[in-house]
Amino acid sequence: MSFAATVLTLYPEMFPGPLGTSLAGRAMAQGIWSLDAVQMRDFATDRHRSVDDTPAGGGAGMVLRADVIARAVDAVARPGVPMLAMSPRGSPLTQERVRAIAAGPGVVILCGRFEGFDERLFEARDIEPVSIGDYILSGGEMGALVLLDACVRLLPGVMGAASSGVEESFESGLLEYPHYTRPVEWEGRTIPEVLRSGDHAAISAWRKARAEDDTRLRRPDLWERHVGARVKSPSGARQDRD
Amino acid sequence: MSFAATVLTLYPEMFPGPLGTSLAGRAMAQGIWSLDAVQMRDFATDRHRSVDDTPAGGGAGMVLRADVIARAVDAVARPGVPMLAMSPRGSPLTQERVRAIAAGPGVVILCGRFEGFDERLFEARDIEPVSIGDYILSGGEMGALVLLDACVRLLPGVMGAASSGVEESFESGLLEYPHYTRPVEWEGRTIPEVLRSGDHAAISAWRKARAEDDTRLRRPDLWERHVGARVKSPSGARQDRD
Repeated sequence: MSFAATVLTLYPEMFPGPLGTSLAGRAMAQGIWSLDAVQMRDFATDRHRSVDDTPAGGGAGMVLRADVIARAVDAVARPGVPMLAMSPRGSPLTQERVRAIAAGPGVVILCGRFEGFDERLFEARDIEPVSIGDYILSGGEMGALVLLDACVRLLPGVMGAASSGVEESFESGLLEYPHYTRPVEWEGRTIPEVLRSGDHAAISAWRKARAEDDTRLRRPDLWERHVGARVKSPSGARQDRD
Repeated sequence: MSFAATVLTLYPEMFPGPLGTSLAGRAMAQGIWSLDAVQMRDFATDRHRSVDDTPAGGGAGMVLRADVIARAVDAVARPGVPMLAMSPRGSPLTQERVRAIAAGPGVVILCGRFEGFDERLFEARDIEPVSIGDYILSGGEMGALVLLDACVRLLPGVMGAASSGVEESFESGLLEYPHYTRPVEWEGRTIPEVLRSGDHAAISAWRKARAEDDTRLRRPDLWERHVGARVKSPSGARQDRD
């Protein structure tokens, strides 16, 4: 069964966009997934097709109306399909969440614009606000593209047998180790000797150590979570390297 | 002077993509910014136009060659223009970093594919690895689109005078407060009374309290940084609400 994505947006012309090319585009052509971009404005009830109004309490910008957007949501909601709204107020997207979505039948994604959605929408419907990162975009469409790209590559048949998908950043709670390839020497810099040794155990140990070192140095937040998870592991034994 | 973005990619056809529409598209048409998508394959030196090779030490996937990519980088590098590479191993993109890039003359963005770049590229050239979030994408192109969208909306003349841009998530180190708009009552839910009071001081206090509460509940990581920053503020006085 194909993974069915529905995007609610004021800019349906942005889709499939980059998802129509490369890996995701081929997978779509093969019927592995489908994408339906729905114009939220079609659910407005006045002749101006209004979807927004000024913020209660004053302030700049416009707010997407709960009543109009709920009509759009109710029209596309399907049992068992999670509904997400791209919003900087949402919970940060993680690879774990991406895996869970990709394992399901599909996803409905609401793309915010302006100052975002009337908050009552989240109280009245089962919609999870999700953020792709701590920066502000011109709208939720970019977030939807990112989320779908992350999901689609995990669908069966998309990456092919040669793909890794396991030894990657975040899959183990760590950043991935650094990569090298030919030429062996370039501008006086050589590939680390251990990687040319053919000693698989040594290579594996080097990669693990580099993944741990880089995570500790570059992402102390990830490292702390990683160590914390191991401390709380069922074995009860601390497994830190140091 | 216009903001000049250069993207190094194996998929130049993905650009401008969604950046050609809406806010960013209009700004591009107005000459506020420009986008040049450069095919990295054009810098290969063999007749197969190879840009990648197998990972030293073994493993799945392919690695982008330092020598070929460096040739592409050297061809587009400009003094004073930061060079970033989209990579899950990079430092997390923040709104602060976006502001700094948008305030400059432009940016060069390298889009990784496969297992990423030969690590020596980062040792030999001044390229900063940047990550848009803790999830894996099919390539750096989506990250480049996100980064450029975040930058372009901040360029002078793009959002217009009515734009907010200040009272937004992350700008104060907090999530933004929730928004409401008409209708006043919807499905039995009303807009919070204070927002309809016309009492600007009360509205401002309510919004501040909600921004703080939501950040503390939803993003303890942001909250801790926010409180920490205030503790270390020059005044020396703790300014917490509790």
